[in-house]
Amino acid sequence: LNSRFVIINDSFLPEDKAALLVNDLAIQRAYGIFDFFRTVNGKFIFADDHLDRFFYSASQMRLEVGKTKDELKELLAELAAKNNIPDSGIRITLTGGYSEDGYSLAKPNMVITQKPLIAGKENNADGIRLISYEHRRQLPDVKTIDYIMAIWLRPWLLQNIADDVLYHQAGKVSEIPRSNFFIVAHDNKVATAGNNILKGIIRKQVLKISGSRFDTEEKDIYLDDIRDAKEAFITSTTKQVLPVLQVDGQQIGTGKPGEITMWLREQLTQLVYD
Amino acid sequence: LNSRFVIINDSFLPEDKAALLVNDLAIQRAYGIFDFFRTVNGKFIFADDHLDRFFYSASQMRLEVGKTKDELKELLAELAAKNNIPDSGIRITLTGGYSEDGYSLAKPNMVITQKPLIAGKENNADGIRLISYEHRRQLPDVKTIDYIMAIWLRPWLLQNIADDVLYHQAGKVSEIPRSNFFIVAHDNKVATAGNNILKGIIRKQVLKISGSRFDTEEKDIYLDDIRDAKEAFITSTTKQVLPVLQVDGQQIGTGKPGEITMWLREQLTQLVYD
Repeated sequence: LNSRFVIINDSFLPEDKAALLVNDLAIQRAYGIFDFFRTVNGKFIFADDHLDRFFYSASQMRLEVGKTKDELKELLAELAAKNNIPDSGIRITLTGGYSEDGYSLAKPNMVITQKPLIAGKENNADGIRLISYEHRRQLPDVKTIDYIMAIWLRPWLLQNIADDVLYHQAGKVSEIPRSNFFIVAHDNKVATAGNNILKGIIRKQVLKISGSRFDTEEKDIYLDDIRDAKEAFITSTTKQVLPVLQVDGQQIGTGKPGEITMWLREQLTQLVYD
Repeated sequence: LNSRFVIINDSFLPEDKAALLVNDLAIQRAYGIFDFFRTVNGKFIFADDHLDRFFYSASQMRLEVGKTKDELKELLAELAAKNNIPDSGIRITLTGGYSEDGYSLAKPNMVITQKPLIAGKENNADGIRLISYEHRRQLPDVKTIDYIMAIWLRPWLLQNIADDVLYHQAGKVSEIPRSNFFIVAHDNKVATAGNNILKGIIRKQVLKISGSRFDTEEKDIYLDDIRDAKEAFITSTTKQVLPVLQVDGQQIGTGKPGEITMWLREQLTQLVYD
């Protein structure tokens, strides 16, 4: 069977031995950050952006990475060579470490895992349905490990026949738990929320691609704006560009994947695979 | 040296071997709950209340404990017998388990630790200084492992010469990250916040003790009310009853531990030690 390796600090361990002692602050107090990126044909995709964000998250949470970006890249290359999974997702987690009193920060523990992943190939690539929920993630610009609300809300999503949740604050839309949110207006203006969000790496790429052809901006988007939109979509490393067909049971545009959405999806795929 | 045992699910492990695989949802997504209670002279203190709350938290998060309360008590007694730490803190944690996809709930992992603890004996028993911060814990009535904001705020506390943070929402006070908050008015009325809080077990005992002698109620408390208060204090399993001498740099009452506060502290100590 598959014997994938996991890095914990400087050790390579088989997956079924990769563990953290229970006094780690992630287990004790949910204190940790991470980042996640793809490999395609063995190549790291947008790795610099992801590593920059990883270092940013770490510094916001007062967690010392203990390695330079280049050292981290070497370690990642070593892991990829050992595991030999050409199309994969790599996750780097940094926790608050083994805390003496279960509350104070200690020397962080770094965990790096790699698993098979072919992004953008999920079943619902035809489009998803969102439901809005009033919530703001804690420290939204930091990629903490906190997805408590997102997982807690899942039965409610099923009940309401929705695929994912769209967070808003008093009607002002921010993000999906693991994705960013975009709309396309009837005049083909493309917009995404700029505040109270995690700035996604795919979001950044899509903003760039979109800006090369359409009027594109970060701006406040309200639930009411979505009802008037021609298209809507989400972006993420796992989902790439995914059409949104419904929000709160209301159809977006024609109720089918939008033209601009699909053009952006294709442009991004080309960028990733070339 | 000390070889304390930790329970993971049904196994007793020495502390330095007590670990969870890194695909546990606590490490992946901060998904878990816990409870924490004391032993005094080997006796479990208010254990029924803590276990009831533990089962409540678990059910709110869709985590199966997989044991009855009685089975859990037997397990705890076995641990206490092995560890032989008469005055201790026992923590029971329940996580989202080893998740295949790092997002979906799996069979929960239960972790039980025991460490020496003599509660209410901390250095600052003379009284603490609080600083207010606008925040509401996610799912406040559930004892999740999420203390991200509390730990993130610690340098800011130091900077502002405060010992802990008092959460409020638009001026309405809720709680301290690991404690509940009470005020005593000049007419000796005792009050504590009733909403957006974790209902502490010591809070419950103090409400009972206080109600036997003073007009005592759960009600909305605003930051302005604190400025007019004669006394203020916090309650928790670790701190028992601890006077609050300052909030946001403003002295409470005489700036010394209040009479009613100290009477409640003494009554609680008697209850625990008798």
